[in-house]
Amino acid sequence: MTNVYVHGYQPRENERLQDQAGTLVDLLHSDTSYAAGSLVLEAGCGVGAQTVTLAQRSPDAQFTSVDISAKSLAQARRTTDAAKLTNVQFQQADIFALPFAPESFDHVFVCFLLEHLSQPVEALMILNRLLKQGGTMTVIEGDHGSTYFHPDSSAARRAIQCQVELQRLAGGNALIGRQLYPLMVEAGLEAVRVMPRMVYVDSSRPDLVDGFTRKTFTAMIEGIREFAIEAGISDAQVFEEGIRDLHRTAEADGVFCYTFFKGVGKKISRAA
Amino acid sequence: MTNVYVHGYQPRENERLQDQAGTLVDLLHSDTSYAAGSLVLEAGCGVGAQTVTLAQRSPDAQFTSVDISAKSLAQARRTTDAAKLTNVQFQQADIFALPFAPESFDHVFVCFLLEHLSQPVEALMILNRLLKQGGTMTVIEGDHGSTYFHPDSSAARRAIQCQVELQRLAGGNALIGRQLYPLMVEAGLEAVRVMPRMVYVDSSRPDLVDGFTRKTFTAMIEGIREFAIEAGISDAQVFEEGIRDLHRTAEADGVFCYTFFKGVGKKISRAA
Repeated sequence: MTNVYVHGYQPRENERLQDQAGTLVDLLHSDTSYAAGSLVLEAGCGVGAQTVTLAQRSPDAQFTSVDISAKSLAQARRTTDAAKLTNVQFQQADIFALPFAPESFDHVFVCFLLEHLSQPVEALMILNRLLKQGGTMTVIEGDHGSTYFHPDSSAARRAIQCQVELQRLAGGNALIGRQLYPLMVEAGLEAVRVMPRMVYVDSSRPDLVDGFTRKTFTAMIEGIREFAIEAGISDAQVFEEGIRDLHRTAEADGVFCYTFFKGVGKKISRAA
Repeated sequence: MTNVYVHGYQPRENERLQDQAGTLVDLLHSDTSYAAGSLVLEAGCGVGAQTVTLAQRSPDAQFTSVDISAKSLAQARRTTDAAKLTNVQFQQADIFALPFAPESFDHVFVCFLLEHLSQPVEALMILNRLLKQGGTMTVIEGDHGSTYFHPDSSAARRAIQCQVELQRLAGGNALIGRQLYPLMVEAGLEAVRVMPRMVYVDSSRPDLVDGFTRKTFTAMIEGIREFAIEAGISDAQVFEEGIRDLHRTAEADGVFCYTFFKGVGKKISRAA
């Protein structure tokens, strides 16, 4: 029996994704807001970690948030209900078979989705067709190859590499952040602008030490332990050493760096 | 005969350092300026690549710029003369034997110096003693481990690793940027704040493609070719492949990322 790892769909991941959005919300989303009356498609909303932020920041825009997983959608709905949001509707759908007519949306928002897909350009092309002329697409992805830290540790780097390898085996790409620009251009978006959002953590920023280094990044790597060992990518001892060294970077003299990438492009049809 | 490589002291490097400062000047220095009448020590001014920027941005501050190399100082003086600057005086001195009394300066500025030193904390402690109470120290360093790109290439990563290894053999540390916070704290500076300055380059930013990816970073790695081969760290063919792949990242669908770190700390004596 193969235990396929898909980042973002494990039980203990839900809390982590919520923590992540709570900690990184300003860094990633502070410059995203949509005008009153806008129709916005959130493609791959997962458990709604970003949905709440999006919908709260643009209370007069209407969000349609889709995901392939009914279970994630149920969680997302509970989250937006708890936040008393009334401008979000959820729909279960596959990104590659979306039940919407061309040019249905003013904006499309995609966050931590492309990393899971073996055909990211095709997904962006499909989403681009759903955009009205002049509409915008916002795409946010991480890049595990952007991770470095002090003290440096080859064991910690190997543990992170396990996650990259597992995501590759599952058809995804944990290094996709750096590729946003060429992917969005290839998908036909215009005026593409990619902005890196680097998370820099040292002990003068205790909220990030706890919220990002420990509870987001290290927790994510800890979460793949069984998958990495079962897949034969790592043995338990080496993996534990890597986790210990990641925690070490959260101490008083430690430093941790990670970069997300945020791209915004426009739909401008060449055909008049 | 050993051909010791010291980054920043090779003939062809001067132009590169000037190019680098020209391209990166706003990113690195736009938030550094000193009040009228301030006495500022620039420790390790090299060929004056940063000196001109510093002195132009703070025309009413007085700069004392020191370097261990008479040759570099002569070049620095030509550069500031050409810029008609009158607020800089140069002095040849070793960082570990500076001819200044304690508390002589309002501010200390250090850029691309610590990476060359085997005792960076000791250097910062010496500089801290030269600061007046309440004075500030600004430190800027790169970190070659912050480099990643698209398309990814193990040959390019190996070529960069040659530079890291050469700098290590010369007693320095090409990965020092991430360590600024603990180094400055250990040296006794207070209220240390480190700000990463990430250079993100894609083809929508042609000035950076040419000015940074090609003429700064790739040129620097190209410049160590003979040293890396002579030291037995790389063979010619692998190295050339790495350089070719670094140039590949400057094409239309390429992306290049590098991060500098800028730290600012304060001198607050515990002794009343």
